Amino acid sequence: MNIREYLEQKREAVDRFLEEVIPDAKTPPTTLHESIRYSLFAGGKRVRPILAIAAAEAIGPLVPATLPIASSLELIHTYSLIHDDLPAMDNDDYRRGKLTNHKVYGEAMAILAGDALLTLAFELCSRRDLLDGLAPARQVQLIYELAVGSGNLGMVGGQVLDIQAENRDIDLVTLQNIHKHKTGMLIRAAVRMGAIVADATDEQLGRLTGYAEDIGLAFQIADDVLNVTGTREELGKNANTDAQRGKKTYPTFYGVDGAKALADQVRDRAIAHLDGFGPSAAPLREIARYITARRN
Amino acid sequence: MNIREYLEQKREAVDRFLEEVIPDAKTPPTTLHESIRYSLFAGGKRVRPILAIAAAEAIGPLVPATLPIASSLELIHTYSLIHDDLPAMDNDDYRRGKLTNHKVYGEAMAILAGDALLTLAFELCSRRDLLDGLAPARQVQLIYELAVGSGNLGMVGGQVLDIQAENRDIDLVTLQNIHKHKTGMLIRAAVRMGAIVADATDEQLGRLTGYAEDIGLAFQIADDVLNVTGTREELGKNANTDAQRGKKTYPTFYGVDGAKALADQVRDRAIAHLDGFGPSAAPLREIARYITARRN
Repeated sequence: MNIREYLEQKREAVDRFLEEVIPDAKTPPTTLHESIRYSLFAGGKRVRPILAIAAAEAIGPLVPATLPIASSLELIHTYSLIHDDLPAMDNDDYRRGKLTNHKVYGEAMAILAGDALLTLAFELCSRRDLLDGLAPARQVQLIYELAVGSGNLGMVGGQVLDIQAENRDIDLVTLQNIHKHKTGMLIRAAVRMGAIVADATDEQLGRLTGYAEDIGLAFQIADDVLNVTGTREELGKNANTDAQRGKKTYPTFYGVDGAKALADQVRDRAIAHLDGFGPSAAPLREIARYITARRN
Repeated sequence: MNIREYLEQKREAVDRFLEEVIPDAKTPPTTLHESIRYSLFAGGKRVRPILAIAAAEAIGPLVPATLPIASSLELIHTYSLIHDDLPAMDNDDYRRGKLTNHKVYGEAMAILAGDALLTLAFELCSRRDLLDGLAPARQVQLIYELAVGSGNLGMVGGQVLDIQAENRDIDLVTLQNIHKHKTGMLIRAAVRMGAIVADATDEQLGRLTGYAEDIGLAFQIADDVLNVTGTREELGKNANTDAQRGKKTYPTFYGVDGAKALADQVRDRAIAHLDGFGPSAAPLREIARYITARRN
């Protein structure tokens, strides 16, 4: 299979869906919707929705509910970026080569756009019109997965740990704990939600969860490496910012080459979780390879 | 009935439930949970949960799911206060007589505590263990109500309108539109959610929605009046802040006495919506009276 083509095709499907489902910039309050759209359509790669879709495909034929459920993950991801970039948090001026939300719309609007996106994710997952055909009990389970993955014991908890670790001399276990929560838990939720929409058995869900935890880790190590080796053009934001902030990352502990080797090792372990799956899991395998080989 | 006793008893039930269900301050990340608890247990009156419970009682005997569903509204309300108080928003130092969340825990933690509370509200509503006995289809409907009431076309949308109106010469229609969203939509969701948990008919839901919209308005008018007439001690925060900020309120348009009369009129209209209900709606009637007579 051609993974680039696959990613492009799924990304377009997610973009088309989001374009349709998110209020346009003429809907009052217009500035809020403009601000939401500014960040949501800033060229994101839609990694989390695509992981959900690929996990669903690994289980069986896609059902109509897959795309809405998958897209809700991008709403959560985008809100987290907007809040993360705020002056009180990481204080970033650029994201994906564009000014960050608060630089364009002001801090108050950026906080509210993030709050609205977070809420919209749950609104989307609780709609019956778009999720017709999905059993309500499954729908409740999906909402629970999304909440746990993104909340106090998931992504938000990870952001807290991350902030607390800044300029402190953390050890490797702490670093792993930060990433397990900050990026890992939402990636885990993405894969699990895709599997749940597709009616995975408990055994399948267990294997896919193992896959998700490993690619979450591989993704983060690769991200840390890119922060060191990438250029501003490749990254769409300033390079080597982690070191400048005195932030400990995987390259700090393993060196750049060591971190790269570790990412490859974790990637292979991720793929091994898919042993019981046939060719329908090809996209998940290729995504694992793609993540550790990417340049941006 | 004794409304003060009723409110006190329900408030205690909500507090006990929240105390049990929200992670304690020893659960990592500890500062996050400490910060969440600081604001959640700062002496809130639990108006929205109590409205949900009272609406459920108006329909029939209480089911176990009522308390969790009602309590989720307080998580949303508390998050909105934390974010609203931030320097980029209203920049308030005091709330309910205590320092605001960001004054104690810093802006970053306050943003994240708000995000976590918002997410916890949906986690709570999507739990099966606590909501056993509630049909999953009902549960999805409740989550949808909560999202719509608190999101871009509800509470968050109202906060955007409110910010945009600051120091601008708004008319009465704009003022009404701000409050309809900023406070009205979550109160509406509270009453509707209580009714839905109790399996209200469409006709009952329609009447209770009318009640909710009117007490939301009465509540806001009374709040504006209190901001003018209340003392710092009564309010637990600085008095007359609206005028100092050049903020247009109901007293601006109607004068204090005119606004008081309007609140009473809207209260009577709210109670009239309950005509078809018997004595089981007594708490809803008394709450409407209490709201317009309160001193804090």
